[in-house]
Amino acid sequence: MNNKIPVGISNRHIHLSSAHLASLFGEGYELQELKPLSQPGQYAAQETVTIVGAKGEIGNVRILGPIRPKTQIEISKTDSFKLGVAPPVRDSGDTAGSPGLKVVGPKGEVELEEGVIIAARHIHFHPSDAKSFGVADGDKVSIRTQGERSVVFENVLCRVHEQYALDCHLDTDEGNAAGLKTGEFIELIK
Amino acid sequence: MNNKIPVGISNRHIHLSSAHLASLFGEGYELQELKPLSQPGQYAAQETVTIVGAKGEIGNVRILGPIRPKTQIEISKTDSFKLGVAPPVRDSGDTAGSPGLKVVGPKGEVELEEGVIIAARHIHFHPSDAKSFGVADGDKVSIRTQGERSVVFENVLCRVHEQYALDCHLDTDEGNAAGLKTGEFIELIK
Repeated sequence: MNNKIPVGISNRHIHLSSAHLASLFGEGYELQELKPLSQPGQYAAQETVTIVGAKGEIGNVRILGPIRPKTQIEISKTDSFKLGVAPPVRDSGDTAGSPGLKVVGPKGEVELEEGVIIAARHIHFHPSDAKSFGVADGDKVSIRTQGERSVVFENVLCRVHEQYALDCHLDTDEGNAAGLKTGEFIELIK
Repeated sequence: MNNKIPVGISNRHIHLSSAHLASLFGEGYELQELKPLSQPGQYAAQETVTIVGAKGEIGNVRILGPIRPKTQIEISKTDSFKLGVAPPVRDSGDTAGSPGLKVVGPKGEVELEEGVIIAARHIHFHPSDAKSFGVADGDKVSIRTQGERSVVFENVLCRVHEQYALDCHLDTDEGNAAGLKTGEFIELIK
């Protein structure tokens, strides 16, 4: 079964710049870790914010740490209809030309000019995993899920880095469409 | 391009029995048509209800007409988490053992004992379409979507009837995961 990869279903979340963290939570504020994520050094913070669009708002949006150079909000297409925003499907970090949203924290608000994306599905590989699966950074592969709602997701980006642990990241629309939960496994189809 | 089939993305909705229509809207009430659906004789009604689960509620749930022998609520997996209910993935009409929800209308409430499902993806074929696609009632096929979020959905039920018009029905999780909108086309893969 060496073509099996664990799945993490990503709910909506936000990565904050240090300037925006200060605006939302106060000068000098530091994020408190709630629990570690699958990728080494990444964590879900105890803190949440509210995101506000033209048509609606969503509260309890989890902040993921650590701080990043640029603020980025990752939502599902389902969320985008509720908020009234039309984000592109993008790889993390590629936010140029994406729309913004208002972010509300306990000590202030930030009106983002850009940074809202729907995260493109992807797989994190440590270089040793990449070797064993025969993939290289930047490859696009297909994956198959199991069960009554089985799906083949195409155009899945392979990301290879020494800081990565093997994990396939889908969003909640993808997870729900496939009837898939965090910790279950998908099969790589090359 | 004779392997292309139009898609309809079904948002959450409810079909009502005549007894439940009377309980929710009053004795003798008749549904008012808002717009016809893709299947001949079926329509979206002007009327909506609120559905209430253990964890939350969702308003403005569209009633689809005409009246049916049994009340049935079709929601997405995303909706199920918000409501706090765990419906099975089922073909329409197959509600035995499914959970219920509270339904609230302008004149009363109904506590359903069962009837909440996640609709299994399916394609409606007129017999002439079925002949041209080479499928029979009850067949399971796969379908491929186009675009950056392209997906192959497996286990898609073929339903063939003289009252049907060619249309592939997916729910909002499936449509959003594939970046697909009503009126776009999928490709049948046998």
